[in-house]
Amino acid sequence: MSSETGKNIKISVFGQSHSEAIGVVVDGIPAGESFDLAPVLEFMKRRAPSGKAYTTMRKETDEPEILSGLLRDEKAEGEIYVSCGAPVCAVIRNRDTRSADYENLRFVPRPSHADYPAYIKYKGFNDIRGGGQFSGRLTAPLCFAGALCIELLKKRGINVGAHIFSVGDIRDKSFETVDLSLNELKAASLKEFPVIEEEAGERMRELIAEAKGRGDSVGGIVECAVTGLPAGLGDPMFDGVENKVSRMLFAIPAVKGVEFGDGFGLSSSFGSLANDPYELREGKILTKTNHNGGILGGITTGMPLIVRAAFKPTPSIALSQDSVDLLSMKEEKLTVKGRHDPCIVPRAVPCVEAAVAIALCDLMLS
Amino acid sequence: MSSETGKNIKISVFGQSHSEAIGVVVDGIPAGESFDLAPVLEFMKRRAPSGKAYTTMRKETDEPEILSGLLRDEKAEGEIYVSCGAPVCAVIRNRDTRSADYENLRFVPRPSHADYPAYIKYKGFNDIRGGGQFSGRLTAPLCFAGALCIELLKKRGINVGAHIFSVGDIRDKSFETVDLSLNELKAASLKEFPVIEEEAGERMRELIAEAKGRGDSVGGIVECAVTGLPAGLGDPMFDGVENKVSRMLFAIPAVKGVEFGDGFGLSSSFGSLANDPYELREGKILTKTNHNGGILGGITTGMPLIVRAAFKPTPSIALSQDSVDLLSMKEEKLTVKGRHDPCIVPRAVPCVEAAVAIALCDLMLS
Amino acid sequence: MSSETGKNIKISVFGQSHSEAIGVVVDGIPAGESFDLAPVLEFMKRRAPSGKAYTTMRKETDEPEILSGLLRDEKAEGEIYVSCGAPVCAVIRNRDTRSADYENLRFVPRPSHADYPAYIKYKGFNDIRGGGQFSGRLTAPLCFAGALCIELLKKRGINVGAHIFSVGDIRDKSFETVDLSLNELKAASLKEFPVIEEEAGERMRELIAEAKGRGDSVGGIVECAVTGLPAGLGDPMFDGVENKVSRMLFAIPAVKGVEFGDGFGLSSSFGSLANDPYELREGKILTKTNHNGGILGGITTGMPLIVRAAFKPTPSIALSQDSVDLLSMKEEKLTVKGRHDPCIVPRAVPCVEAAVAIALCDLMLS
Amino acid sequence: MSSETGKNIKISVFGQSHSEAIGVVVDGIPAGESFDLAPVLEFMKRRAPSGKAYTTMRKETDEPEILSGLLRDEKAEGEIYVSCGAPVCAVIRNRDTRSADYENLRFVPRPSHADYPAYIKYKGFNDIRGGGQFSGRLTAPLCFAGALCIELLKKRGINVGAHIFSVGDIRDKSFETVDLSLNELKAASLKEFPVIEEEAGERMRELIAEAKGRGDSVGGIVECAVTGLPAGLGDPMFDGVENKVSRMLFAIPAVKGVEFGDGFGLSSSFGSLANDPYELREGKILTKTNHNGGILGGITTGMPLIVRAAFKPTPSIALSQDSVDLLSMKEEKLTVKGRHDPCIVPRAVPCVEAAVAIALCDLMLS
Repeated sequence: MSSETGKNIKISVFGQSHSEAIGVVVDGIPAGESFDLAPVLEFMKRRAPSGKAYTTMRKETDEPEILSGLLRDEKAEGEIYVSCGAPVCAVIRNRDTRSADYENLRFVPRPSHADYPAYIKYKGFNDIRGGGQFSGRLTAPLCFAGALCIELLKKRGINVGAHIFSVGDIRDKSFETVDLSLNELKAASLKEFPVIEEEAGERMRELIAEAKGRGDSVGGIVECAVTGLPAGLGDPMFDGVENKVSRMLFAIPAVKGVEFGDGFGLSSSFGSLANDPYELREGKILTKTNHNGGILGGITTGMPLIVRAAFKPTPSIALSQDSVDLLSMKEEKLTVKGRHDPCIVPRAVPCVEAAVAIALCDLMLS
Repeated sequence: MSSETGKNIKISVFGQSHSEAIGVVVDGIPAGESFDLAPVLEFMKRRAPSGKAYTTMRKETDEPEILSGLLRDEKAEGEIYVSCGAPVCAVIRNRDTRSADYENLRFVPRPSHADYPAYIKYKGFNDIRGGGQFSGRLTAPLCFAGALCIELLKKRGINVGAHIFSVGDIRDKSFETVDLSLNELKAASLKEFPVIEEEAGERMRELIAEAKGRGDSVGGIVECAVTGLPAGLGDPMFDGVENKVSRMLFAIPAVKGVEFGDGFGLSSSFGSLANDPYELREGKILTKTNHNGGILGGITTGMPLIVRAAFKPTPSIALSQDSVDLLSMKEEKLTVKGRHDPCIVPRAVPCVEAAVAIALCDLMLS
Repeated sequence: MSSETGKNIKISVFGQSHSEAIGVVVDGIPAGESFDLAPVLEFMKRRAPSGKAYTTMRKETDEPEILSGLLRDEKAEGEIYVSCGAPVCAVIRNRDTRSADYENLRFVPRPSHADYPAYIKYKGFNDIRGGGQFSGRLTAPLCFAGALCIELLKKRGINVGAHIFSVGDIRDKSFETVDLSLNELKAASLKEFPVIEEEAGERMRELIAEAKGRGDSVGGIVECAVTGLPAGLGDPMFDGVENKVSRMLFAIPAVKGVEFGDGFGLSSSFGSLANDPYELREGKILTKTNHNGGILGGITTGMPLIVRAAFKPTPSIALSQDSVDLLSMKEEKLTVKGRHDPCIVPRAVPCVEAAVAIALCDLMLS
Repeated sequence: MSSETGKNIKISVFGQSHSEAIGVVVDGIPAGESFDLAPVLEFMKRRAPSGKAYTTMRKETDEPEILSGLLRDEKAEGEIYVSCGAPVCAVIRNRDTRSADYENLRFVPRPSHADYPAYIKYKGFNDIRGGGQFSGRLTAPLCFAGALCIELLKKRGINVGAHIFSVGDIRDKSFETVDLSLNELKAASLKEFPVIEEEAGERMRELIAEAKGRGDSVGGIVECAVTGLPAGLGDPMFDGVENKVSRMLFAIPAVKGVEFGDGFGLSSSFGSLANDPYELREGKILTKTNHNGGILGGITTGMPLIVRAAFKPTPSIALSQDSVDLLSMKEEKLTVKGRHDPCIVPRAVPCVEAAVAIALCDLMLS
């Protein structure tokens, strides 16, 4: 059991990399919400491979077909849809799949991919073509669901933005150091290569190109901020904002760490430095600093939510690696063929926004 | 809605710091499992304040009374209980509570505590005495539930251990560098001050004492390892091991970050270094390294699970802090009274073990 | 997994008939709701054995101790409690238990009790004393939870009442034929023997006495009505009002059928007779008849909800019955000792109210 | 939130009567299960309108397209698919829809349809064409999911069959009076008009024709039996077999009552008659009678499960009915156009089998 989550917004993702289609059912969208399809498609395009040097050459148009739950508003200009209260289902057809690339992988698991544990779990019956249900491609329906949630939040004054915080050792500025007005929030996330500081971005692209050049890959961190959240969302213990957001973020392949506010940095700090004192600003109770990333006791404080997700380097590299043939039980060298991202972090930026938005939307609608 | 979690092992925690009692309902323990109460109580004692310099002076005996679900085995020696298939409920009476210490906090929220968001969420009706349901004391029933899960896992060949990985900037060795045989795993976690390297532990205690001396507090990291896990546990996407374990860990107050394997370290690494190649060892398929902490695609690989949780410094410090009076809406200086841990990390070690064990038990019993 | 349910109001019931205590955790009660304990205890008393001829002679005082979630209002007169947002836990100690009565039942299952399937499910480890977790006694914590929900609903203008619709072949009037103003609704349910027509009640008591006299038991039907429900509660398909209410009602031991509105009667009717036409009454859209019991498509219509639950005769009878010894695998005669209700229907009336109220409260708070 | 259910088998149904498509996601099917598509399609055909006098004239081919989760077995003859562990999604395109038929219903709710409560719940934004998400058409994806579950159960020795128990006042024999060997079980359910006694079926068809002739509709009861169930499935209280099966059955539009075993009949019986005594038959512990329908304490006994669902008459009738215009708030006469079943009971038979199979599969796979 794997592909369903949420309490007020229920998300059910389906599909494999090379099945007929992938898609998602989103249940719980209130009736009467209108959605402009243009920003939804724009959002999904940010996740799709761009053909740029730092992404895979695989082409994915990722155009979702809406099967249910949204009614076309005939009177409106553009592609405006209105939710009717029924679950929304969208499917994306799989095209440009080259299943042959994966045949040599059936019994020789790729290091640090899900191949081996999936083989054990599914007794060898899992769909290995393109990584099957473990493919990063499954983040496309996640992004569709996320795009709807982002629109729902936006109408309630809540905005979500993310950027590349780091690639390898190269760091962008943090959202914590930036004025998080709407413009600043979106400025970074909507760039083609979403960083705050152009110069850091330049060096990141160089590092990615360098890694690619030697058949290698590189990891990075995505930082996400959410502004406009009211204080009081979330629950103590198991259903706090951190519990829910981290659960969603670990659904994105390659995420190996999640931290809120100063996160791991807080572990080497002192209370006198780490505490966020309260003050009044324009009649509102706010904290002077935001080391806690907008969450205390699992509940939003009204300050911006700040969360970072650490991505490991894409496990698919062109170099020869050690593996074991599961049938013959002999050690074997493996070279992974196919088209892969040398660094998934740029394309992961909207995925992080989507995951965070889904978790928050679930809380907002409760 | 907050205090319930799990699919096969359902945990429902209740109570406030100063209510009649705190406790937990654990549903889903298979019938016929026998539990020796001695190790359960021993485990809970690790969480209870020790009276040592690095913990609170508050005395908590934390003796659970078992109300249901476990039948005393009259024939066995010692306190042996056998599960009967009904939900297990255990309660711990609250004693040695000094509610008066908290009166000045009713409308002046302590920085970085849950006071302010709780005030908003519960419209001022929340129980503020001792932090109410946000109190670290609620980890006592969590530890009771965890202790049962640890025993269930142990019988299935799975062992859980944790230690203090860091306090402030002082680091212990990592479990990643240690031979994780059962003895090594337990050696650290069962110490009174649970570290691998005594000398690091000495310096940590000094740092805590130093912080305490100036009325301050300090953060740290707990590292947990689980050995003996079979490959194939967990599900892709929303119900992977990382999703479930992180959701449980963020239930522990003060946790602000969670990472698996090399975690955030992976974000600055390359695929050629970060991938874990396979090899055969004694006829078994294992990885040469374990940068992924025993999880790929959300599923266990058969290697030890490695997870770290970052704890922020205890927000309760003796120094004067800035706050706002919620009634008069005026800024105010606040000094927190009461007995507090200058560093919760030592007592958090069993809490981390408990949270991880509950998540894994939920997966094992599916 | 068995004892937990709900989405907005989560109920976790624990305990066995002869364990230290039974109880319930109720999570999701909004903070700031005040509860007078008097009507809660009054409600629970309706379920407790009265010592009258038609109930068991076992004495159960059923006084709940509130461990958490409710704070005593020191300023109010009487026992007024206010919810603080934390889960409410209440426990009821088990007293006056005669475990010896059940020893002869360990391996000889009582016909139509849960003994045999429980023996298989729990591999013989289940607590057989007094029926263990299958005991009707577990409806006491259900009634405590239900009483809180009834109070929450009452404040929102929603009232719940039930009565004995039939015992054996003897029928009371239906709520469908009565003006369901608050007085009429409560008039029946608050009687010591809750029927609308006294004369029917008299004959029911005679029938119960007659059955008891010959060591037998008799079944019956409880009818419940809920007034004041707004239109629009509930969801299509799996989470409709009927789905949720029936799921709760089948949690009460001995319930074997549930019907809404005319229920099974509708199966022999025609659309022209069974449809409920709309009309305007005092500016409101109402139906002229209420054959659908206030629910269409799983959603409330604004008409009173009408539901009936069929109870089988108490399986504990004094007559000799055929059974099989599970150890020797030989057929055997069994005579059940102990104190039992010849008809549980009178005491089941508040249980039905509780179950219905919990389901509706879960919907109301969404 | 409405369209998702289950713990081990999760079902997420989507679509409206006139949306692009309807469909279902089935998550939790173990990997490596092979499915012959032929019996699945055969099963779905039983639900589709036959063009016979007793069903609607609307044509629905209901051919599901499988988008994910099942891999075509290239080596096998016929349409054999193997589950790969990923969620199965199947969609059915909506064709032959005549949306114009529904325009006059937008603001004039049809009596005893979901129109009015849906209008309130969805604030007028619900898709009214063909009943939207409340359409009986949504039982097609339910039947697809059910067909997979029926196949899974069949391989585990469990068989599901249903028949028309009654139409109006005309009764078929009960499964309780029949030898429930596989042949007998299937004999009735696979007939084009699924009854045990041909003669009763003949009279039922006459009654339906008669009702249809005068523009009316008629209700009925479907009875379902499940053989081969092991003892010990299900849980006490909220997750018993009765709770789960009834929750699923009430998902079928028009179901207003559910009973197990003798159900409501038990309410007028005595313990001495209603109890099911145990005996040994061929070394097995069975009950001599099966008044409890194979369930005690929410748990299967090993006897056949017997359940009946009461269907109200189709609310769509050709006669003029009273309603209210929701816009003008004036009373109005309404005549429903379109093509409707005068009795849905014949087509509901596979729906009941599907609902019961899904609930049991969820229990079997735990």
